[in-house]
Amino acid sequence: MSQWTLAQRAHKMNPSVIREILKVTERPGIISFAGGLPSSKTFPAAEFKAACDYVLTHDASSALQYSASEGYAPLRELIARQLGETSAAAGLRWDVDPASILITTGSQQGLDLVAKVLVDAGSRVLVESPTYLGAIQAFTPMEPTIVGVDSDEYGVLPDGTPGSLRHQILSGADKARFMYLLPNFQNPTGRTMTEERRAAVSALAAEQGLPLLEDNPYGDLWFDQAPPAPLTARNPEGCLYLGSFSKVLAPGLRLGYMVAPKALMPKLLQAKQAADLHSPSFNQRAAYEVMKGDFLPGHIQSIRALYKAQRDAMLESLAEHFPNAQQDPEHNLTWNHPDGGMFLWARLPAGLNAVELLPKAVDAGVAYVPGAPFFATGGDPRSLRFSFVTPSVDEIRRGVAALAQAIKQAQ
Amino acid sequence: MSQWTLAQRAHKMNPSVIREILKVTERPGIISFAGGLPSSKTFPAAEFKAACDYVLTHDASSALQYSASEGYAPLRELIARQLGETSAAAGLRWDVDPASILITTGSQQGLDLVAKVLVDAGSRVLVESPTYLGAIQAFTPMEPTIVGVDSDEYGVLPDGTPGSLRHQILSGADKARFMYLLPNFQNPTGRTMTEERRAAVSALAAEQGLPLLEDNPYGDLWFDQAPPAPLTARNPEGCLYLGSFSKVLAPGLRLGYMVAPKALMPKLLQAKQAADLHSPSFNQRAAYEVMKGDFLPGHIQSIRALYKAQRDAMLESLAEHFPNAQQDPEHNLTWNHPDGGMFLWARLPAGLNAVELLPKAVDAGVAYVPGAPFFATGGDPRSLRFSFVTPSVDEIRRGVAALAQAIKQAQ
Repeated sequence: MSQWTLAQRAHKMNPSVIREILKVTERPGIISFAGGLPSSKTFPAAEFKAACDYVLTHDASSALQYSASEGYAPLRELIARQLGETSAAAGLRWDVDPASILITTGSQQGLDLVAKVLVDAGSRVLVESPTYLGAIQAFTPMEPTIVGVDSDEYGVLPDGTPGSLRHQILSGADKARFMYLLPNFQNPTGRTMTEERRAAVSALAAEQGLPLLEDNPYGDLWFDQAPPAPLTARNPEGCLYLGSFSKVLAPGLRLGYMVAPKALMPKLLQAKQAADLHSPSFNQRAAYEVMKGDFLPGHIQSIRALYKAQRDAMLESLAEHFPNAQQDPEHNLTWNHPDGGMFLWARLPAGLNAVELLPKAVDAGVAYVPGAPFFATGGDPRSLRFSFVTPSVDEIRRGVAALAQAIKQAQ
Repeated sequence: MSQWTLAQRAHKMNPSVIREILKVTERPGIISFAGGLPSSKTFPAAEFKAACDYVLTHDASSALQYSASEGYAPLRELIARQLGETSAAAGLRWDVDPASILITTGSQQGLDLVAKVLVDAGSRVLVESPTYLGAIQAFTPMEPTIVGVDSDEYGVLPDGTPGSLRHQILSGADKARFMYLLPNFQNPTGRTMTEERRAAVSALAAEQGLPLLEDNPYGDLWFDQAPPAPLTARNPEGCLYLGSFSKVLAPGLRLGYMVAPKALMPKLLQAKQAADLHSPSFNQRAAYEVMKGDFLPGHIQSIRALYKAQRDAMLESLAEHFPNAQQDPEHNLTWNHPDGGMFLWARLPAGLNAVELLPKAVDAGVAYVPGAPFFATGGDPRSLRFSFVTPSVDEIRRGVAALAQAIKQAQ
């Protein structure tokens, strides 16, 4: 008999709670506000087809060969330029050196590499309350103590409460390895950190020597106004920035990147090489071909218009079905108004529980994700996340109606 | 000032010794026997272009979307069928369940996931002497004690010497987590385990409860006769098998897979999800389209013919320049005769050192990789690895002549 012995860390790894919850929602005909899937209408299939054709006609022997762990140089240069321009438009100069950019297999891999290089068993990692569940999953194999930091509708609280950032920085015997932040249209809440909040968090982090891990997959998906400049632009050597092409091109390419401080790049590169040698040469070249001209700005504009219309439909439907939400939040569903991204955050009437309501909502024809699993510790059982990007406007209206029905029956 | 604190494991991670060594070889005009790059002549660019076109015409919304962490079901079924057929042709029945297959971002990622799930700091991992350097790099972040097992020209020695497998299994206070083996046309030696050796190692591993990690990137590249059946086919629940499309299709796609025992699949899948969510949906579909018909067998046949001609050219040139190698191995270069794969293993005359000779060889116009870094501990400084697949037949002849000249001048 061969005997497999699991590593200690493997015992701490668990199936995604959300994945398990979502199993009840996998029924034909259910309108899903649950998943975090970009609308497939936004995938540039024709442009990508032309790019594949171009790359395989002109550069096949490099595109299909092993390549540098850092990534494809023209793509890294393009990313550096894009980041500099976006930050400048938001009012902050950020000179991004292409040599500081590492192409990753989706930005999820960035989370894995950072955890490998920075997290020891038992070391503290700070996260927002709530936070992106995939980050907790990526950090967990390296066995950190994950500490939630109090947050409000503008993001993490720098100071003032016992669970605020200043308190949590100082509360541990050891220095926290980093704080993980998703400042723009956060997953799961859809909230965005204000400029004032960014300035305060950035100053506090610099004062306390706390490194920041900034994750920005949704920043381009703003509806009315671009979000403030990245935290990393304020202190590039004290921050690590993660970006993604999953929301502006397509997630099926698995292309993301990190902007690493000089102190960390060599170790992150070694971790990358050990993890998968390099991200697919072909995908990097094809994505570069799609983006090298003037396609992307107009394309992003059209994604924004689509998602804004869907968010508006969701807000309108919610207001229609819960007209007394503001006056009487304890007996109504309440929700926030995200300015971009993919998600809206809501709260059930008192006495209801998002996990318990889910099977009833599914019976009524709609699915969502309960909010509690997104908290490192002790989430609000009434909270829930809606995605407004996967279903159509018509489906959004019917889904909200079904949800309202399920809530009324359960009350 | 933000202060980055590295994880303990990061201090153990180092740049690839070979990468550093190869920097001296990066000069225009140098004939390289050093890299492990498949010949770009073998990349099916036209077929891949047609496949990309097909996938983006008929299945773009799935191919560009997020997908299951396990991988694309038709590809997993195709792999299961291929493995069963190959094993049956070698005389052993192996019923591979597609549900046991996990698609990885290159087989390198398989090594990373296995280490995460099975290796604790200080736990023992057994490897061949010498072994694939990328495996050591993938295991190192999880901080194992890597133990080399004595090997001869037929692979790892089951018994008899103080460094043999039986001895190393029993020598530690703890049970080794697994033994890592590359039975077919091994990197770096090109050697292949005989059927007798496989049977002995498999029986000993089963007797001692030692799990095996079998890596098989080169198995299809045989020249005269297929290698014996995989070790995993003899004990599927006691082995973990890694496969790759890098050598039969193209490495730039970053597509590999593992066949996992039932006991490990859930944890490996969680580790995969945390690492990069899933391997690129698009690449999986395009590779499946290329392979679903009858293209692959003929294509592999043509790769075998190409590589065999190049191996023959290298063997002939070596015999021509070192005609007294067999009679007088101490004063000549000696080498083995691999039956497939990409590599040949050689030994310098007494008094020479492969690291010290390298700059002189490069001056003469040829590069190789010194063999010592491939040993977990204490490698033979006279050993070196030649790849015969990247250069052309003409370059191989000129490269061997240059090498012979460098050796004679150094003697």
